[in-house]
Amino acid sequence: MNFHIMTLFPDMVEQGLKTSIIGRAEAKGLLSIDAVNIRDYAFNKHQSVDDYPYGGGAGMLMQAEPVFQCYEAVCQKTKASKEGKRPRLVYLSPQGRTFNQEMAEELAKEDELILLCGHYEGIDERVLEEIVTDYVSIGDYVLTGGELAAMVMIDAISRLVPGVLHNDVSAEFESFQDHLLEYPQYSRPETWHGKQVPPILLSGHHANIEKWRREQSIIRTAENRPDLLEKAELTEKEQKFLEEYRKNSLQS
Amino acid sequence: MNFHIMTLFPDMVEQGLKTSIIGRAEAKGLLSIDAVNIRDYAFNKHQSVDDYPYGGGAGMLMQAEPVFQCYEAVCQKTKASKEGKRPRLVYLSPQGRTFNQEMAEELAKEDELILLCGHYEGIDERVLEEIVTDYVSIGDYVLTGGELAAMVMIDAISRLVPGVLHNDVSAEFESFQDHLLEYPQYSRPETWHGKQVPPILLSGHHANIEKWRREQSIIRTAENRPDLLEKAELTEKEQKFLEEYRKNSLQS
Repeated sequence: MNFHIMTLFPDMVEQGLKTSIIGRAEAKGLLSIDAVNIRDYAFNKHQSVDDYPYGGGAGMLMQAEPVFQCYEAVCQKTKASKEGKRPRLVYLSPQGRTFNQEMAEELAKEDELILLCGHYEGIDERVLEEIVTDYVSIGDYVLTGGELAAMVMIDAISRLVPGVLHNDVSAEFESFQDHLLEYPQYSRPETWHGKQVPPILLSGHHANIEKWRREQSIIRTAENRPDLLEKAELTEKEQKFLEEYRKNSLQS
Repeated sequence: MNFHIMTLFPDMVEQGLKTSIIGRAEAKGLLSIDAVNIRDYAFNKHQSVDDYPYGGGAGMLMQAEPVFQCYEAVCQKTKASKEGKRPRLVYLSPQGRTFNQEMAEELAKEDELILLCGHYEGIDERVLEEIVTDYVSIGDYVLTGGELAAMVMIDAISRLVPGVLHNDVSAEFESFQDHLLEYPQYSRPETWHGKQVPPILLSGHHANIEKWRREQSIIRTAENRPDLLEKAELTEKEQKFLEEYRKNSLQS
């Protein structure tokens, strides 16, 4: 999968993603991260890409033309463009649909994805109307620019690309996969600061361990994210376990 | 404000935050970013910090002791510790409360904040119980580690620290501040790809411009994030405007 990031800070994006799993996947050729500097498409000798907003107000705005020229240059590089198609372009913005695991799974199926990072007070509306296919927000908070949001999306999407995670099993048993949060985990030593590993994990009884972990996940989700639990698929036994748990915690 | 990040990838965090506004604020001494390598607190000569999870399962787990030792070292550096207090420690985890602008405002009031970034399959539960004060998630998606999430939080919090943004006005009129999304913005030229800047923005009539922008914000929020709109404080006139708008868009 090829990511193209249109940004004023290409170094930040490339260095921030070179580490760890994503960096290794890039080295293996499973994905490519191509950060393109919008400033290279400024049409004046000062390489400025921003100007005052019409109607007044604080701060500067990114102008339409450099963003558009940068977009055209990025499109030329994509496979889609050779087939006369345009790849999806995500604009990172608080205006957008809120990013979640389902969206990550959907976007992981694309061959190419362009991510546009705004800065200053935003980008001239007219170029957005012309090129953006998806407005996406990573959450209800304001960032100084779109770069970190783009990096978050790339990280979440990349690890779903086949072969990127060391261990394909890892992506299966994790938070949100079944609308449940992850169970608690323990590693050596058996006793740390006087705290024991739950004995069941030392029992070697696989089926019981699975059952315990699943129950822990259900408890955690019930405690911390009851909104997720509504979508989780619980067996009849698990449903009963949850009801028991709720009854007991009300009493205590 | 001082941020301490406990991580296996200190370079990633430091480089990713050195750019732009946060980097300038650090240079001005308004905040400090201190990324500490947990691996420096490994207790074996191989500097390994991970081990298999008890009970089996895919992947490795970060062990309790190196995380704890790293935490102790970080605490020593903080002002709070000199007063016998412990600073807040945020563990970035899908288990956590979902980060939002209100939480950013609350955390911006702290002098010190420690952020703990997990990797591999997570961290031994026992050390989390002992040191974590806040479990925070930046959204309902899974990342390869906590680093990008920590950087997102630091970015969102930092820009609320007085003096960090160039223009204090900027932080006021923006998305989520009043539970409304931002209005569209336009910069030069007046006509771009045949598209005109809305004439009102060229009128010079300040009050009308403000009214138009506020209405655009209301429309956008109604279209894209009706859930936010419920919390917005609208005047009676604005409420009427919204009702009119909804009636008209139902008809079209």
